[in-house]
Amino acid sequence: MKQFLTDDFLLNTEYAKTLYHNYAKNMPIFDWHCHLEAEEIYKNEKIESITKAWLGGDHYKWRVMRAVGVDEELITGDADDFDKFKAYAATMPYLIGNPIYHWTHLELKNYFGIDYCLDQDTAEEIYKIANEKLATDDFRPRGLIKMSNVAAVCTTNDPIDDLNYHDLLEKDDSFETLVKPAFRPDKAIAIEKEDYGAYIKKLSEVSGVDIKCFKTLKDALYKRMEFFKEKGCAASDQAFKYVPFEKASDEEIDKIIKKKLTGKILSIEEEDAYKTSLMIWIGKIYKDFDWAMELHIGVIRDNSTKLEEKLGHDVGGDATNDQYYAENLANLLNEIEKINGLPRTIIFPLNEAEFYPVSTIAGSFNGGNAEGVLTAQLGPSWWHLDHKEGMLEQMKIMSATSAFAKSIGMITDSRSFLSYPRHEYYRRLLCRFVGQIVADGEYPWDEQFLGQMIEDICFNNANNIIKL
Amino acid sequence: MKQFLTDDFLLNTEYAKTLYHNYAKNMPIFDWHCHLEAEEIYKNEKIESITKAWLGGDHYKWRVMRAVGVDEELITGDADDFDKFKAYAATMPYLIGNPIYHWTHLELKNYFGIDYCLDQDTAEEIYKIANEKLATDDFRPRGLIKMSNVAAVCTTNDPIDDLNYHDLLEKDDSFETLVKPAFRPDKAIAIEKEDYGAYIKKLSEVSGVDIKCFKTLKDALYKRMEFFKEKGCAASDQAFKYVPFEKASDEEIDKIIKKKLTGKILSIEEEDAYKTSLMIWIGKIYKDFDWAMELHIGVIRDNSTKLEEKLGHDVGGDATNDQYYAENLANLLNEIEKINGLPRTIIFPLNEAEFYPVSTIAGSFNGGNAEGVLTAQLGPSWWHLDHKEGMLEQMKIMSATSAFAKSIGMITDSRSFLSYPRHEYYRRLLCRFVGQIVADGEYPWDEQFLGQMIEDICFNNANNIIKL
Amino acid sequence: MKQFLTDDFLLNTEYAKTLYHNYAKNMPIFDWHCHLEAEEIYKNEKIESITKAWLGGDHYKWRVMRAVGVDEELITGDADDFDKFKAYAATMPYLIGNPIYHWTHLELKNYFGIDYCLDQDTAEEIYKIANEKLATDDFRPRGLIKMSNVAAVCTTNDPIDDLNYHDLLEKDDSFETLVKPAFRPDKAIAIEKEDYGAYIKKLSEVSGVDIKCFKTLKDALYKRMEFFKEKGCAASDQAFKYVPFEKASDEEIDKIIKKKLTGKILSIEEEDAYKTSLMIWIGKIYKDFDWAMELHIGVIRDNSTKLEEKLGHDVGGDATNDQYYAENLANLLNEIEKINGLPRTIIFPLNEAEFYPVSTIAGSFNGGNAEGVLTAQLGPSWWHLDHKEGMLEQMKIMSATSAFAKSIGMITDSRSFLSYPRHEYYRRLLCRFVGQIVADGEYPWDEQFLGQMIEDICFNNANNIIKL
Repeated sequence: MKQFLTDDFLLNTEYAKTLYHNYAKNMPIFDWHCHLEAEEIYKNEKIESITKAWLGGDHYKWRVMRAVGVDEELITGDADDFDKFKAYAATMPYLIGNPIYHWTHLELKNYFGIDYCLDQDTAEEIYKIANEKLATDDFRPRGLIKMSNVAAVCTTNDPIDDLNYHDLLEKDDSFETLVKPAFRPDKAIAIEKEDYGAYIKKLSEVSGVDIKCFKTLKDALYKRMEFFKEKGCAASDQAFKYVPFEKASDEEIDKIIKKKLTGKILSIEEEDAYKTSLMIWIGKIYKDFDWAMELHIGVIRDNSTKLEEKLGHDVGGDATNDQYYAENLANLLNEIEKINGLPRTIIFPLNEAEFYPVSTIAGSFNGGNAEGVLTAQLGPSWWHLDHKEGMLEQMKIMSATSAFAKSIGMITDSRSFLSYPRHEYYRRLLCRFVGQIVADGEYPWDEQFLGQMIEDICFNNANNIIKL
Repeated sequence: MKQFLTDDFLLNTEYAKTLYHNYAKNMPIFDWHCHLEAEEIYKNEKIESITKAWLGGDHYKWRVMRAVGVDEELITGDADDFDKFKAYAATMPYLIGNPIYHWTHLELKNYFGIDYCLDQDTAEEIYKIANEKLATDDFRPRGLIKMSNVAAVCTTNDPIDDLNYHDLLEKDDSFETLVKPAFRPDKAIAIEKEDYGAYIKKLSEVSGVDIKCFKTLKDALYKRMEFFKEKGCAASDQAFKYVPFEKASDEEIDKIIKKKLTGKILSIEEEDAYKTSLMIWIGKIYKDFDWAMELHIGVIRDNSTKLEEKLGHDVGGDATNDQYYAENLANLLNEIEKINGLPRTIIFPLNEAEFYPVSTIAGSFNGGNAEGVLTAQLGPSWWHLDHKEGMLEQMKIMSATSAFAKSIGMITDSRSFLSYPRHEYYRRLLCRFVGQIVADGEYPWDEQFLGQMIEDICFNNANNIIKL
Repeated sequence: MKQFLTDDFLLNTEYAKTLYHNYAKNMPIFDWHCHLEAEEIYKNEKIESITKAWLGGDHYKWRVMRAVGVDEELITGDADDFDKFKAYAATMPYLIGNPIYHWTHLELKNYFGIDYCLDQDTAEEIYKIANEKLATDDFRPRGLIKMSNVAAVCTTNDPIDDLNYHDLLEKDDSFETLVKPAFRPDKAIAIEKEDYGAYIKKLSEVSGVDIKCFKTLKDALYKRMEFFKEKGCAASDQAFKYVPFEKASDEEIDKIIKKKLTGKILSIEEEDAYKTSLMIWIGKIYKDFDWAMELHIGVIRDNSTKLEEKLGHDVGGDATNDQYYAENLANLLNEIEKINGLPRTIIFPLNEAEFYPVSTIAGSFNGGNAEGVLTAQLGPSWWHLDHKEGMLEQMKIMSATSAFAKSIGMITDSRSFLSYPRHEYYRRLLCRFVGQIVADGEYPWDEQFLGQMIEDICFNNANNIIKL
């Protein structure tokens, strides 16, 4: 009988096994996009319990618990830690085909040496083992990062962040993993939000530039980008529900900003015009600074007001949008390219139906990168798509429409120090994907080249795209 | 050589075989959404011929016959019954990869004991065998339902239906299968239709409420819903070309209704506003009544005017829409949830490209169902999608983004008493899907749990969602 | 170890092997849609080098070279022929999973007898062998066409083309392959383009009709269609970014044409109205003339202005659009059908997400074709989709929603005389697809019927749809 989660988990050909065990497995991780906090890494405090580690902030897990009918008290409520853990354990068996099932068991195996399944019956024992380990020094954040063979981390930071903890980490010789900020100006872009005015006020303060118009907004952001650059930033990220594209003059953008700052309601066209002009300018600066530009597209957030009012944002109420945006995306990249060339760009649609449009658009903007990297590419599957089939689908479309060997590899996108097995999951699927092509006689078995390619996709390509 | 349609049809692993033969096969069917007529079940008249049974009203079959060039005379025309059957038989071999091919042969095997293929050469013999059986008492509608192990049927009914035949069936002790109405207020929702005014008039008469505004419309529908509830209704269904979402005040809805009833043309925005307000209210009543809410989304109907003028509606001229609606759907569910919670909701996109958006939106609204059922879920593949790959795709996305073990299972959606093998088809694919995951080492072989899960998906979950 | 590119390449079952080797392989090719020039076929000049043949105009190849960072000088620039070839060779290994990898090696094998892989190390030898062969008479255009077993070619022609070279070929008894024009009125349809006015002037001259309004435009086009008909045209093609549908009176179209011809800017609605009215009329004439109507939908072109300004159109800057259009497509086909019936229609969405909508819409318009051909169908995968998985996906959806046995088979869509192995690629996948269904026990092994079906899809069906 086939065993679950063996050493050859997901590796269904001899080629896949060779590529994984000889090449992929030992490559370090470049965690170039995540939601870890530099402060937590710096302070390196013990993680209180496996419940806190797993259910403290992971809305993926909350969603599946809600799906099987667990009471909210046992998910995000005040219930006892063990009761919560047991409720999560009892949820597990229902998750056949769900990546949470695999991630959970990979985490149990890799960090805690547990090679049997989590369920209601094993919950107590696993709770005990995990908590004992978490109480040891090796299982503090830095230990977990080290144990996971992470060479570098790019955190996600707001332009107003002081990056103090990044400084402190830089000066701390006892920790070898690089921890650098990434620039995420979402709040400066999201002019539709109620708190835009308040944010602009803070950005004015932090930058020392009194933002009153488009020029001063750009001045302020530029100062913050210079500051981020000093601190080693090499990547940016922005999130859009869909890609806006409305051209407007700088004078019109001035008016839109003033209109918003005086409390008036903007039209969708005005919001889109603001975002378009800002993104064109900001993309140009990314190119000047040699930063990579990440675009995460297509989330509709906080769908349940009931849930949002109870728990806030990022609590499991987010979903995939289906609005189209290919032409806008192409136009936006084009406008940036026209100025001074396109920065290295990774585009992450949350809707699988956008993989083809996005990958073929990206392919319209490549060329002439001396290091042989892609200028623009479809990013790896993320969030609701980062399960086995979603990842394989991205590999399929990326390889069919671009140069897959040059692709950037896996994104962690996690808030947890225990999420690095997602890279193992990706790498196993990567080797499965490549191995299957060879096994099917569609590419020759050239171990040297393919081994190098696997190592590149696991680590090297990302280093050539996001240059810390 | 591999045989067609063996006992292990579609079951490609030992796990699949075990799950199907030991668990799935013997579960009763809960036919919670179909287009059978209570009157036909009550009257239980002999089915005249296999031609009448198959080609009398099945536009799936008409479409494939047209695709291979059969003359309309032999499809819906006045041709001789056997000639029509022979034309259908001659169509069969061309349908490799089409679910009609499988359904047809499953029906021949299960009901008529015929285990060879239908084609031009076998047409005469099969016609004879099938008609002989249809002439026996066991092959009347009730016999076929019994033979198919159907525990309960939800018919699809208009709010103005008198449900007399449901009453008569309720009182008839000789027939054990429950036959309950389901509430389908499409005609009250479809304000864009020419016959809306005429329908509202009829609804006024039947309900005894003179409908002149939004309030009286709601009063009338509420009366009908109370009536349906008395008759055992526990489910509702509504069909949309796309999901509308335009917020408006009740006063505005009053004006829209009056405008329409006085023969004026509404704008799309007005139509959408009407539908939105009505659906928000109606969803709230479903929740109060503990009815499930089914949403079938994305059909463009009667595409060929030529065909419609010749034969009417539901004649094979319908197709899949591609318009986006994720945000509207999320907003609509949210507005319903805000009032009093969301009723148990099953959403059926006809466009496979909407499986991700819909499943992740559904996942934003789960939580706290004591029976451990999903509040909202992506429904099983239907109509143009209910073939092998379409069904497997729904299982893949449902399992990757939700708790598949809690899903509602198969929908029949048929007008024919011979369509129950569609459940067998689904169940075989279900066991194939689950068995493959186990065989691939992605879930352990826990026969007790998985067997129970299969039984739940085949029958029990539906009972917990649609509570007759 | 599995070998790459054996005789059984892509044929993974015994059924597939039998169907390919005994049926598919030897069928002639009907190249019913390509971008070959009749002039080049007539003049039959030697192809200067493999670099000219492969990199002279093939933007597919340019894109993948750009993706791996090759300098533009070595792609479309003035670099030495061998240096360019070597750069292309060095790109090859990075293209795992990309159809370019397979096409390149099939071309090397079929035309040049080279059965090892192209890479940096083998570049020089392969360059030498290929160029030696290209220098022989057999490797001139006509020889390559003959060697490829091509029975007929439909070139793609503008309404103003004089078709002189088609005439000359018709009179040349030494070349047996039919070479007929296909009518592509894109420039007459694309009223949004700057050069529309200039084009209309030329069309006026060529047709002898002074185009000043809708009627004179139709008169001019009709004259050209009559001329094309005389020259043996039997097919048409038109390309749309999305399908427009705006109804308007002929008087309104007159005004729109005049507005444009006097240099004014049209609204999107006006452009769409013009295109809609023109397509409805033109579709009617296609039906009268018994021409097939091809619709290629969903390309966004010239995305990079930088690239366009440097190199022009069709240079690798094109991508897949994601805008929806199902209802418009259904309405357009319906309006055409209402007049005098729908011509045989093949619809090619570039977005895989449109396969379901398009195939089900096509299925709404079938019926009564005496030869048993599909009136309307989803065309085979093309351009960014004509890789292994994209082709299999088209087969899957076509078979699940229509009568696959009646489908038209492969489209070449190439500018190169070396592209015919794309048919071999398609045919291998076709036999793989059908063989797998049989091997999975989902269709019986009826070699006679299936062999005939394969031959029909490879060649005969196209002959019944495009009637040269």
